[in-house]
Amino acid sequence: MQRALQEARAAAARGEVPVGAVILGPEGEVLAAAGNRTLEDKDPTAHAEILAIRAAARALSSERLTGCDLYVTLEPCAMCAGAISFARIRRLYYGAEDPKGGGVDHGPRFFTQATCHHRPDVYGGIGEREAAELLKAFFADKRG
Amino acid sequence: MQRALQEARAAAARGEVPVGAVILGPEGEVLAAAGNRTLEDKDPTAHAEILAIRAAARALSSERLTGCDLYVTLEPCAMCAGAISFARIRRLYYGAEDPKGGGVDHGPRFFTQATCHHRPDVYGGIGEREAAELLKAFFADKRG
Repeated sequence: MQRALQEARAAAARGEVPVGAVILGPEGEVLAAAGNRTLEDKDPTAHAEILAIRAAARALSSERLTGCDLYVTLEPCAMCAGAISFARIRRLYYGAEDPKGGGVDHGPRFFTQATCHHRPDVYGGIGEREAAELLKAFFADKRG
Repeated sequence: MQRALQEARAAAARGEVPVGAVILGPEGEVLAAAGNRTLEDKDPTAHAEILAIRAAARALSSERLTGCDLYVTLEPCAMCAGAISFARIRRLYYGAEDPKGGGVDHGPRFFTQATCHHRPDVYGGIGEREAAELLKAFFADKRG
């Protein structure tokens, strides 16, 4: 999660919402790491999780990341939860909860739906304090 | 929707699940057209809608597709519904319903959630018969 937090800090420095994600392969190796790039890439789908999943799939030359684990500093939204399911991610570790936009433990709770055909094991609140502080500082600065 | 069906047929010819999508700009011009490429691109996020949204955002050099309309041959999943919302798509026209994997009128019904912050106008069943027949033929062939 420390590496994901680094990616979140780097995103903040680029003026992006500070969210970072890392994907580890079955042997614990880092396959991909990414921060939010929706503004820089002018791509509404360029959330940290989506970028990391796409990079890991390229690294493995497979559209399935079986046995891989994803660490992300914020609870994934519905879009990212869908991508995590399609990618067959094994375990999802996330930092801060996202009551306003989350899709795992809030809103659609995608992994609980009958239309979800692969559910990762989910562990929330990992490195939560630091992830939440990054987001809070970012939005306070935007409002300031 | 005819153009989206063309993209779906082209996807089937590549061995992909036959789904196609087209995005029209505010003046009715075609900004992007794409078919499913998850296998060819080895990218679990490469649904027709995601590819079309990313291409239209590139075309407009903006992460927001305000005033744009999306036509897709199948009801979008939760991942694509999330992307449609983030992209600020104005109207969504879809063909066949997807009770097993849809995220608009089935499962998470993403646009009805409090965590969804932009809802397009949604029109289902547009070109439904042809879209459904394409999918049915594709899966019958896979099983055969």
